[in-house]
Amino acid sequence: MKAAGVVVEYNPLHNGHVHHLKETRRITGADVVIAVMSGNFLQRGEPAFIDKWSRAELALRSGADIVFELPYRFAVAQASEFAQGAIGILAAARCNMICFGSEDGRIEPFRNTLRLLEDEETGYEAEVHRLVKTGISYPSALSQAYRSIADTAAVAEPLADLTKPNNILGFHYMKAARSIEPAITAFTIGRTGTGYHDLGADPDSGIMSATAIREAVRTAGITNEVLRAVPDHTARAMEQFREAHGGFGGWDRFWHILRPLIIRDGAVRLRDVAEMTEGLEHRIARAALDAPSFMEFMETVKTKRYTWTRIQRILTHVLCGMDRDEFNRLRHPRYLRLLGMTAAGRRYLNQYKDGLGLPLVSRVGSSDDPMLKSDIRASDLYAVGTGDRPGKDFRTPPVMAD
Amino acid sequence: MKAAGVVVEYNPLHNGHVHHLKETRRITGADVVIAVMSGNFLQRGEPAFIDKWSRAELALRSGADIVFELPYRFAVAQASEFAQGAIGILAAARCNMICFGSEDGRIEPFRNTLRLLEDEETGYEAEVHRLVKTGISYPSALSQAYRSIADTAAVAEPLADLTKPNNILGFHYMKAARSIEPAITAFTIGRTGTGYHDLGADPDSGIMSATAIREAVRTAGITNEVLRAVPDHTARAMEQFREAHGGFGGWDRFWHILRPLIIRDGAVRLRDVAEMTEGLEHRIARAALDAPSFMEFMETVKTKRYTWTRIQRILTHVLCGMDRDEFNRLRHPRYLRLLGMTAAGRRYLNQYKDGLGLPLVSRVGSSDDPMLKSDIRASDLYAVGTGDRPGKDFRTPPVMAD
Repeated sequence: MKAAGVVVEYNPLHNGHVHHLKETRRITGADVVIAVMSGNFLQRGEPAFIDKWSRAELALRSGADIVFELPYRFAVAQASEFAQGAIGILAAARCNMICFGSEDGRIEPFRNTLRLLEDEETGYEAEVHRLVKTGISYPSALSQAYRSIADTAAVAEPLADLTKPNNILGFHYMKAARSIEPAITAFTIGRTGTGYHDLGADPDSGIMSATAIREAVRTAGITNEVLRAVPDHTARAMEQFREAHGGFGGWDRFWHILRPLIIRDGAVRLRDVAEMTEGLEHRIARAALDAPSFMEFMETVKTKRYTWTRIQRILTHVLCGMDRDEFNRLRHPRYLRLLGMTAAGRRYLNQYKDGLGLPLVSRVGSSDDPMLKSDIRASDLYAVGTGDRPGKDFRTPPVMAD
Repeated sequence: MKAAGVVVEYNPLHNGHVHHLKETRRITGADVVIAVMSGNFLQRGEPAFIDKWSRAELALRSGADIVFELPYRFAVAQASEFAQGAIGILAAARCNMICFGSEDGRIEPFRNTLRLLEDEETGYEAEVHRLVKTGISYPSALSQAYRSIADTAAVAEPLADLTKPNNILGFHYMKAARSIEPAITAFTIGRTGTGYHDLGADPDSGIMSATAIREAVRTAGITNEVLRAVPDHTARAMEQFREAHGGFGGWDRFWHILRPLIIRDGAVRLRDVAEMTEGLEHRIARAALDAPSFMEFMETVKTKRYTWTRIQRILTHVLCGMDRDEFNRLRHPRYLRLLGMTAAGRRYLNQYKDGLGLPLVSRVGSSDDPMLKSDIRASDLYAVGTGDRPGKDFRTPPVMAD
């Protein structure tokens, strides 16, 4: 059996994602599609709109055969580490193909970019270093350095546009694959419809970005427009989550937990939080005293030097107790955490049972594995914030779908 | 000018406390009465019913001339350390008399007990040590060891009954005075009315315990019975606090903050909290996952080995971020934190201005003093739990009364 891998968040799963899953199967000719999915906290440093088990079920109903959880350590991390964790898991699952969404759907520009940045590695890194020192954010420095290297090299082939979030991730998947398992072949499909951050959407297209869907559902409920943009099971899952939890996951519901944590810890202890950078801990500690809401807090904390996303990730680490030491120690995936599978997915795993590169974890018992413990801790905090009962990782078996 | 000192919590201030203040002035012949008062968290490991500034004002209106805050480090600590902190502050304030409430109002039994335990120190400590090893709580061991030493010594003079909370504190004040400033003379007055824990009270006596008052106010509001048991200004202060904060201070209002802190920190980090004892961190971490309320949580955590009070103090340290290291480093008072004074109090402080044993802090600026920082942190957490704005220590000048 041949498997193709996708790396996803499904926050929530919409028609664009269904298209991605279908196309992945079609263009790779895979027998099963393996999704590596973030858990209850996401790469942009936000609590998931609905929980990981609900989202795993949506994935299985929409074309995925196996859903593995991307451990917190990689899910809430910058693009390169996010990609390394995800590709590490797919490689351990004996998956030789990956397929990601990109702006224009061609893989060549990514290959060209990869080659260019490998050839020019020293110059590129020096330029990134120089730019970061001028006070701009790291992602801006990456993208500016890339542009200047591309200009200087004056390559004839088309290059990937690394100002687009999806392209950045795709580039990092390919880069990670090259170092972890060069046998992995990369495919890409073009995004249909709106860009990541467009809140507005063509109401007739049946395509809305996940951001636009969350915004619409939060403010106006599951409108007709939303219903056109998501599969029925997503609409039902959102409805059920709202009924069970009195709302959705989002920073607004975690602010009353995060704020006392910040005030209790103070700048001195915040200094040891993962990804915290010199000085930011003071801004965070000060801002927490006065801010009445998460948004007002963020407005006070943000600076030109740090992206909004970066700050949100740091705050997620504060919330979930991820220290710098622990973060730096946990560099590689340690298990395949099964959130759900179809019958085909089960056959696949049975076939490779003894050949998987990492232990398969389908039921979580009490464990001393520090990576798994951090996943469980994040789940428990998510439960507290969304009014759920903690300990769900111990109680919840993998979702089984037909 | 001569000063007499009292050590108080006023949670809240009632007629028994007014009597204590009046009698202190009368029997000591002091010109001013100095109250050393716990801040927003109390010796039993509980958030105060109303905040420290409100309580300081009540003290000044009821007969105290100066109110110093007992730093968190001593306020939320076992009786011996509570007493050492308080007496250290009174000694630094050049106060040569103290007066505490006791069961029968005679000072002789305390002197006898002090002498006995000094004479029999080695035997007493060995017996305490032996008893603790049998698995009973530390306070029980102290009191059993005391009884057995008293029996063995068969002294003719009356001894203090160290099973009563007020007597225990009184004993420790005298013991602390002996080591810190032997020139301090101790006085005691008998308690009028109910014992510390009696929830019921004679409705006509005008005396209810602070515990009974809180219980009545929480469940039935400021009833006629409560009105008879407290000065008018206490009734008004409670009313105002409730209006401003939508309720009173108490663990029920802090559970939604404490629980995520426990879940986030986990047993590994809880181990470093002040007063945490081997193994208890696991009970606490486990119980937090399932407990729907603070009371149910406490019922799950408590064991024969630890008193309820001890566990609550540890939880207060979790809430307020007091580590064992910090707790152990901060052994002695470092300042006189002025919460309020009368005109006479001001004259007294002016007179001793340059002769005080510790710096007088009447306005808190940003400070690096670790003891003061822990007081401010506790205040900020109290503010968050009671729906107030943190940073109140920086904004609030000492209360001035006539």
